[in-house]
Amino acid sequence: MRALVYDGELKLRADYPQPVRPPGEALVRVSLAGICNTDLEIMRGYMGFKGILGHEFVGVVEHCDDPSLVGQRVVGEINCSCGTCPTCLAGRPTHCPQRTTLGIWARDGAMAEYCVLPARNLHLVPDSVSDEQAVFTEPLAAALQILEQVHLRPTEHVVVLGDGKLGLLVAQVMRLTGCDLLAVGRHTEKLAILERQGIPTRLANTGLEIQADVVVDCTGNPDGFASARAMVRPQGTLVLKSTFQGQKEADLTSLVVDEIKLVGSRCGPFGPALRLLDQRLVDVESLITAAYPLEEGAAAFEQARTKGCIKVVLRP
Amino acid sequence: MRALVYDGELKLRADYPQPVRPPGEALVRVSLAGICNTDLEIMRGYMGFKGILGHEFVGVVEHCDDPSLVGQRVVGEINCSCGTCPTCLAGRPTHCPQRTTLGIWARDGAMAEYCVLPARNLHLVPDSVSDEQAVFTEPLAAALQILEQVHLRPTEHVVVLGDGKLGLLVAQVMRLTGCDLLAVGRHTEKLAILERQGIPTRLANTGLEIQADVVVDCTGNPDGFASARAMVRPQGTLVLKSTFQGQKEADLTSLVVDEIKLVGSRCGPFGPALRLLDQRLVDVESLITAAYPLEEGAAAFEQARTKGCIKVVLRP
Repeated sequence: MRALVYDGELKLRADYPQPVRPPGEALVRVSLAGICNTDLEIMRGYMGFKGILGHEFVGVVEHCDDPSLVGQRVVGEINCSCGTCPTCLAGRPTHCPQRTTLGIWARDGAMAEYCVLPARNLHLVPDSVSDEQAVFTEPLAAALQILEQVHLRPTEHVVVLGDGKLGLLVAQVMRLTGCDLLAVGRHTEKLAILERQGIPTRLANTGLEIQADVVVDCTGNPDGFASARAMVRPQGTLVLKSTFQGQKEADLTSLVVDEIKLVGSRCGPFGPALRLLDQRLVDVESLITAAYPLEEGAAAFEQARTKGCIKVVLRP
Repeated sequence: MRALVYDGELKLRADYPQPVRPPGEALVRVSLAGICNTDLEIMRGYMGFKGILGHEFVGVVEHCDDPSLVGQRVVGEINCSCGTCPTCLAGRPTHCPQRTTLGIWARDGAMAEYCVLPARNLHLVPDSVSDEQAVFTEPLAAALQILEQVHLRPTEHVVVLGDGKLGLLVAQVMRLTGCDLLAVGRHTEKLAILERQGIPTRLANTGLEIQADVVVDCTGNPDGFASARAMVRPQGTLVLKSTFQGQKEADLTSLVVDEIKLVGSRCGPFGPALRLLDQRLVDVESLITAAYPLEEGAAAFEQARTKGCIKVVLRP
């Protein structure tokens, strides 16, 4: 099958072997796959991953143990857990030490004609949700994970730092709580998407003196931590959503002195994400900058790296 | 001035003295006032209140120490606190033991040509929010208080019991979290308002076997407690929003055995409520069943008590 593979460099392979479906898993024909910042970081060495890229997708089940799933339009949770270890049995499968992760760790991804995932990872996509919307389920779930982890009160002053792919979703999810929200970014045209929804925005580097209750770092880059940290009030909460290759010097002592609570936040729940999409509470279509056929994957990744670009999707 | 007064019975008074504005307070000409279930309970003896009814209102400031407030369209927080006691200084002014409460306790309410409130209780109404929307700020804030008190996770199964004035607002606020929501009520036509927003609903008394993580009792009546309690899973949370006259037998032991967390919930934050109204995230206009001139207050209260009625508003 055709597949977009990273093995030290990005290659379109026309002869990649179609994945073999193990028992309990489903073979999914991919309709649409999204490029995430994590994919760009993988190409800088993050996770040391080699194989088919892609963990944001929507597709149609072609083979599965459960015949009722065949032909259904689905999205899929990307962490494939063992289901039997103490972590899984404690209800934390996304942290299973034996897990594989679609297109990120020990499991080929979705930028291909087909991918396989455990059937229990799949979620049916409501008819009201288009493929172009459904492909955002995974990052929208990651945004919702913040509300899963942090009790964000409607009266709190919340700053979302970063107006990239994830930041624009996080800001939209935060606003639904009624909180006093400010989105801070570097791109007027990206912030305008949030402004249209009534979310106040500011350009970074405009002499901001912010002391927020909760700050979410969605910059996706190593410098985001210090910028976000500087905006948190004493005893406030700093949520980290950025994953990047390498380490970064950080002023950990100031977290102690100001008693900052730091919350690392990764993958989130698909059910709530699909509900928000179904009820049109989040605007995702505006975030698609371009769509490419899989064959033009290299050009798609090139565009995904350019300033001003938001989400690039691939059609296998 | 004209005022709707309860003194053991409901009376329209044409000669009620216009309130005198103490320093720090604002004289507000009332544009619109809403009838709340609490008003109906007051007429059953709740709080022993006598005076002008009404705590849901929108109006225009006529006199105030701060000249910039004069002429502004405002809504007002109903609890008037001393600002100096330990409770106030601890940041809990709505629980100030010396407080008066608009139209509920030791302070005349808003079903009149004028009312007075401390200037610090007032919130400006954005131009985008009509009077008919703004009059819902107080009950919408009460709905938001649940999110202020309870960390409601997007993955949780939440039931809102009661499809009255408050229940319809609470359900709309809960859905914004992305949670797995079910609204349970007794009125098909009221539940239809929620169904139009994609919120699943069920009629009560239809053999419901629910074990929810969080149940919110918005029934407004004494029997709501047992019905709501029966729907909470062990170690789940039961939020009580109903305030009614009198006491009720309750199975407190079952709360111990099933380790239920019970959360009493009353007044909430106006800022977040105005943000949700401004951003059109909650539908309130559909909830207005009828509007009456103040002179027809008796008829308005009569209608407010009828089955099928949602919100009745008065125009002073």
